Amino acid sequence: MRDFSVADMDMAPKGKQKLDWAWQYMPVLSSLERRYSGERPFDGVRLAACLHLEAKTACLLRTFARLGAEIFAAGSNPLSTQDDVCAALVSEGVHVFSHRGMDHDSYFGYLRDVLSSDPEIIVDDGADLVATLLDERKDLIGKVKGGSEETTSGVKRLKAMERQGILPFPMISVNDADSKYLFDNRYGTGQSVWDGVMRTTNSLIAGKVVVVAGYGWCGRGVAMRAKALGARVVVTEINPHRAFEALMDGHEVMTMDSAAPLGDIFLTLTGNLDVINARHMDKMKDGVILGNAGHFDVEISKSDLTSIASSVSEVRPNVTCYRTKDGRNIYLLGEGRLVNLAAGDGHPIEIMDLSFALQLLSALHIQRSHGDMESRLYPVPEDIDRLVVSTKLESLGVSLDELSESQKAYMVDWRE
Amino acid sequence: MRDFSVADMDMAPKGKQKLDWAWQYMPVLSSLERRYSGERPFDGVRLAACLHLEAKTACLLRTFARLGAEIFAAGSNPLSTQDDVCAALVSEGVHVFSHRGMDHDSYFGYLRDVLSSDPEIIVDDGADLVATLLDERKDLIGKVKGGSEETTSGVKRLKAMERQGILPFPMISVNDADSKYLFDNRYGTGQSVWDGVMRTTNSLIAGKVVVVAGYGWCGRGVAMRAKALGARVVVTEINPHRAFEALMDGHEVMTMDSAAPLGDIFLTLTGNLDVINARHMDKMKDGVILGNAGHFDVEISKSDLTSIASSVSEVRPNVTCYRTKDGRNIYLLGEGRLVNLAAGDGHPIEIMDLSFALQLLSALHIQRSHGDMESRLYPVPEDIDRLVVSTKLESLGVSLDELSESQKAYMVDWRE
Amino acid sequence: MRDFSVADMDMAPKGKQKLDWAWQYMPVLSSLERRYSGERPFDGVRLAACLHLEAKTACLLRTFARLGAEIFAAGSNPLSTQDDVCAALVSEGVHVFSHRGMDHDSYFGYLRDVLSSDPEIIVDDGADLVATLLDERKDLIGKVKGGSEETTSGVKRLKAMERQGILPFPMISVNDADSKYLFDNRYGTGQSVWDGVMRTTNSLIAGKVVVVAGYGWCGRGVAMRAKALGARVVVTEINPHRAFEALMDGHEVMTMDSAAPLGDIFLTLTGNLDVINARHMDKMKDGVILGNAGHFDVEISKSDLTSIASSVSEVRPNVTCYRTKDGRNIYLLGEGRLVNLAAGDGHPIEIMDLSFALQLLSALHIQRSHGDMESRLYPVPEDIDRLVVSTKLESLGVSLDELSESQKAYMVDWRE
Amino acid sequence: MRDFSVADMDMAPKGKQKLDWAWQYMPVLSSLERRYSGERPFDGVRLAACLHLEAKTACLLRTFARLGAEIFAAGSNPLSTQDDVCAALVSEGVHVFSHRGMDHDSYFGYLRDVLSSDPEIIVDDGADLVATLLDERKDLIGKVKGGSEETTSGVKRLKAMERQGILPFPMISVNDADSKYLFDNRYGTGQSVWDGVMRTTNSLIAGKVVVVAGYGWCGRGVAMRAKALGARVVVTEINPHRAFEALMDGHEVMTMDSAAPLGDIFLTLTGNLDVINARHMDKMKDGVILGNAGHFDVEISKSDLTSIASSVSEVRPNVTCYRTKDGRNIYLLGEGRLVNLAAGDGHPIEIMDLSFALQLLSALHIQRSHGDMESRLYPVPEDIDRLVVSTKLESLGVSLDELSESQKAYMVDWRE
Repeated sequence: MRDFSVADMDMAPKGKQKLDWAWQYMPVLSSLERRYSGERPFDGVRLAACLHLEAKTACLLRTFARLGAEIFAAGSNPLSTQDDVCAALVSEGVHVFSHRGMDHDSYFGYLRDVLSSDPEIIVDDGADLVATLLDERKDLIGKVKGGSEETTSGVKRLKAMERQGILPFPMISVNDADSKYLFDNRYGTGQSVWDGVMRTTNSLIAGKVVVVAGYGWCGRGVAMRAKALGARVVVTEINPHRAFEALMDGHEVMTMDSAAPLGDIFLTLTGNLDVINARHMDKMKDGVILGNAGHFDVEISKSDLTSIASSVSEVRPNVTCYRTKDGRNIYLLGEGRLVNLAAGDGHPIEIMDLSFALQLLSALHIQRSHGDMESRLYPVPEDIDRLVVSTKLESLGVSLDELSESQKAYMVDWRE
Repeated sequence: MRDFSVADMDMAPKGKQKLDWAWQYMPVLSSLERRYSGERPFDGVRLAACLHLEAKTACLLRTFARLGAEIFAAGSNPLSTQDDVCAALVSEGVHVFSHRGMDHDSYFGYLRDVLSSDPEIIVDDGADLVATLLDERKDLIGKVKGGSEETTSGVKRLKAMERQGILPFPMISVNDADSKYLFDNRYGTGQSVWDGVMRTTNSLIAGKVVVVAGYGWCGRGVAMRAKALGARVVVTEINPHRAFEALMDGHEVMTMDSAAPLGDIFLTLTGNLDVINARHMDKMKDGVILGNAGHFDVEISKSDLTSIASSVSEVRPNVTCYRTKDGRNIYLLGEGRLVNLAAGDGHPIEIMDLSFALQLLSALHIQRSHGDMESRLYPVPEDIDRLVVSTKLESLGVSLDELSESQKAYMVDWRE
Repeated sequence: MRDFSVADMDMAPKGKQKLDWAWQYMPVLSSLERRYSGERPFDGVRLAACLHLEAKTACLLRTFARLGAEIFAAGSNPLSTQDDVCAALVSEGVHVFSHRGMDHDSYFGYLRDVLSSDPEIIVDDGADLVATLLDERKDLIGKVKGGSEETTSGVKRLKAMERQGILPFPMISVNDADSKYLFDNRYGTGQSVWDGVMRTTNSLIAGKVVVVAGYGWCGRGVAMRAKALGARVVVTEINPHRAFEALMDGHEVMTMDSAAPLGDIFLTLTGNLDVINARHMDKMKDGVILGNAGHFDVEISKSDLTSIASSVSEVRPNVTCYRTKDGRNIYLLGEGRLVNLAAGDGHPIEIMDLSFALQLLSALHIQRSHGDMESRLYPVPEDIDRLVVSTKLESLGVSLDELSESQKAYMVDWRE
Repeated sequence: MRDFSVADMDMAPKGKQKLDWAWQYMPVLSSLERRYSGERPFDGVRLAACLHLEAKTACLLRTFARLGAEIFAAGSNPLSTQDDVCAALVSEGVHVFSHRGMDHDSYFGYLRDVLSSDPEIIVDDGADLVATLLDERKDLIGKVKGGSEETTSGVKRLKAMERQGILPFPMISVNDADSKYLFDNRYGTGQSVWDGVMRTTNSLIAGKVVVVAGYGWCGRGVAMRAKALGARVVVTEINPHRAFEALMDGHEVMTMDSAAPLGDIFLTLTGNLDVINARHMDKMKDGVILGNAGHFDVEISKSDLTSIASSVSEVRPNVTCYRTKDGRNIYLLGEGRLVNLAAGDGHPIEIMDLSFALQLLSALHIQRSHGDMESRLYPVPEDIDRLVVSTKLESLGVSLDELSESQKAYMVDWRE
């Protein structure tokens, strides 16, 4: 078992500076750290994590460490791993296994490194740790107390496991907490995707036709901000209620086949594969820009892009040009991986503060209550969900109204 | 048992013109009417309804009638009843019991009239029919097959009955259907409240401080449109997640005590009572405008308004001026009843088309399946919910994408 | 010379109530009235006005009267005249000549009545008073000191007169003042047009395709609010800069020929004629709604509507249905006259407060300085323009920053 | 006279790639290049430019070069100069004098290098070339045919020279063209400032209090996008009309003294100095972020920041932390220089395409018509302004309506 594997330990000071910047805009996580610092509830607990290894997640890992955990962390995405942040974490005692640009084999090698720690708690992002454990390390079942999962895509996979009866231990679906999906998926993705697109392309958004595939919470956020930046937004959907909601929000709704020749910028947020494929690419204009903001790099078919291309080249950082045989340029951002992470800094700090507070408290819940839990997918306990957002409001100095006794009574009475 | 009781049958032609106008913008309801016109599934069924008796609800009642039902309808609100519409319904064979401006005693008298029809199906709005039945007509329990309820407030009451074990028959909560709450409560209320405020006051919304009490679906809609009309929006809430969502949407959040001295226009959408009371009124500016968009006229305390007033007068249609003892004018719209109904025409037609299609199909579900249902509160069956919005999209010519076989497989698989 | 001519003096009390409501939301006009009430600068001055005779303009006329003027007022539009307001004005000593629904001949008869007062100052709206004077009362040239004009359309006509060298006396173009066009044309029209459309039709705006003809200040306002209410906005223009601005604001731009088959609601704000004509009407969908918000009822060709119709009928207040020979319904709002006045209460009170303050001070400027003025079209003097908006800000308690001495010096220096 | 001075010629290939990316999104400039490529109207003309030396301006310089000009170019800002772009330009024959991070002395040295070319035409940005010529190279007066100026700040300086009677040759104010200020200052600055802030800080904008100093076209754009991103916007102004416009747009307006303790992010766009000074800094919260988007780095007083600081350090790229003596962190972005250029890529490409097309055609106008021009500040000729935006619309496939003969006649007639 290796102790760590990162690109360059000399980058630690720069990484630390990044962590410090993020930390000051994380009032919820820092409030929780202060609260539990005496108790150290994770003392000696081995925790395996697969996460985007950038400054904000690093703050979560550091908090786990400060509360006593021994942490083994792999990066969840080759383009989101930041080598200086990895080095900084190692310097603070975290066992990190990742490097920016790692290939498929390295990635799974790192997951194995992390699982070789005999972890008690798992913090997953996309369910790759759990899936790898199921495939290769069934021996760990029974040793792991449980874990948490952050993303819509990961939860989808865990549900599939649950349906098949093979989910190996209790998992908490952080993604479905009100403090997560209402904010992270909408305001976080909504802002960070456009941050990523703008910095990567220097394109004007106003006046552009932006095609948003999928009108879930992430898609709603991306469409809302696109419109706010002056774009004309076209939404594609498979669900009629969401389609109608998009219409009511002032967007146009059509099939991807109809949208393909209209769009200037295409963004996928469906959680599914081949949402943009050769049939659509054939109809696109010269100079279109494609980006994915779903968890995996499968939404835009890269094999289809390659098959219609006469040449492929990197023309800017994070921009690949597929030159089609009929002479058009189709640009793919961040290799079709999460555009806000591959071509940006991911979600804004303040958003992740909430999500990570949920992660921390979910892990604590597993640690304390796993004996009473089954091998099921659990929601975040309501009191945790409420504590997180209340701590946030408190940090902002925002006060709420409280129900009077007569109002409480009125709410549970059926007589007027 | 009376046959009907309305203000003036001579008004029927004008009422009919109103119905015809609404009908042409109701593609979903008219599509369903065509679909079931051969079968006449309600043939001979006695149906008791308590609804806002204006043009759009009249279209629902007319459709029930055309599909065979014998209908007994009371108005759910003295200010929303339109006498011409009532007359038109009577001329089409509906037994209507209501008149605009009816007092409390007349209102309950009419409910009794309606219940005296020995109804089989109940279409309720605010749960007053069910509550009156529980109080006065327990003999009907066992005869009624079931019913549906339209509003958040009514569902709250039915839930209270269910908790107490006294809900007398199966009720379907139309309010919780996706085709209802996503659209009616947000876009319907969002638009119609401002329509009502603007036409009643001729006030400029831009630059005003608008205080929105409650950030549920109705409150979100009203706040969204206030901001869109150029107002500065202040939200008051008791729920921290909703409060934080309001902040993320760019609104300010504070207690009503803090908001009271800032606001120019106050709108309540909480479903609770005394949300604005004397303590707040004491701090308000001269010339403020108060309106309620919750179901009942209890959110703004009218007794508190009266107690702080030195004089009360009607200064414009639907505007009551409470002159305070310290010389300020506080204006109450529509007597504190639903401002979009009391001082406007209620929700836009296209929105009610969806809600009424749900009502129609829910009643049909009760009619067909009541034998298999318990005395519980049921959600709208998913296939009904989906049919309604799909019919709407079809009427707009909007097409959706469909999942390919490989995409379907991907969605239920946990291996990437 | 008649003293006055209105529909019904018994309506005066109701009219007075309307004036009182408006007055309390007019801090600028009331502040000016207080300021000049000692001096009475218009004592004995005969003033002829042609204005929309509703509550707000009535406040302007009342202020002129309280400052000493003898006023002769005609209504500028048959559908905007409110008979109760006319009666109230007469009861306060204003000579009013108008009635709601007046025909073309009555209208010009009233203008002649007003001009028969031998006026010294003219307050015009659409330039009809000046045009009639030029056509029929050239004897008044030399007696009139000057006047002011409120609308874009009127200013266009006065400019034509100026180009032809026949403008008979100095006129101040109130329309071009910053305190007018920035606010009245954009926020005033933007809100009031939608108020008028919503109350008249009960249509949902969200999800509709709204076609806005003309992207001047009025069109910008109407398009901005349409988008804010959830519509998809299509703009038609003849000016490339405005067209591009519309694109940048997230709207679509196309010719009216292309827009005709797409639109659900069409609004004209061009100041030109036949903007929507038979060629476009032929392509429109069943059930479309047409409204005009330009000054004159010429933008939508009513003769073309009539020529393509097999029947014409009033189906709702302010809604005329043109049933086309091929079986479609095309609805025209307010007979093609200004939809916010014909089918609503016109601009919000607070907006008109600014415009009327400009009118008052412009008339005062004419009164005092006409000896130094030529028969030209003048802008509102800058100090008046500034005084008006500063008084408004003061009434709102808003403070501005002030330049320090070093900042003033920096602004006029070219060395850094 | 040196031939060129750049940091590293090896960076040319990377710079060329940047130019190629920008070029494909510049349909107007490329259309003009094609149009004049046969004629080569600048053949042998010596042109001195002071511009932000990044990819887009480089495209303008390249177009000048391809149309025959001999170009001498200095960078207008030490932080906006991109060394790879400079190298690429040199490789295409442009004489470039700049390097990223140049100090004050180098900067003026480079201006002198450029002026030593004996230029015939000047393309200025901030008026530094003209000011230096006036100070040091009066001998060039009479040789220079004229020039153009891009920025609001530069135009302000040229106006000061004109008032003093020392403007040495005709200058065209590109900034005041409709194709420039309507789009560049509003949509360009509006987007790029937020691109710069987001990428530099990773801060969430939603829910933040953003203070915008100055509500000119740039300020309007920045405030509009801030609101669109979910912020609460506070505007400070010295002009009452602008202040009221900000209120109507839904923002709050107050003095900087009042805004200082409320803001999370402060952005200055006034064109003046010391807009944020020690008096304000003393009241700010811990962790506030300050950025400037006016032309010069004088709007936020850096000397005041230094004087209240106990330590100063660079904590992230383009973020300087001023640690105050009372323990707060105040962060300054991009050393107080234009945040969208110092900490981003400047305006979006499509916006600059319009501005540069104006520059190109203005220089052409000078070249052809300077004999008929005086030493004054000229607006961009209207036909140029119109040609630029029409070419843009054409590239987008957007069609406009055209006036019919009867409509043209109507527009110049005063009879209805």
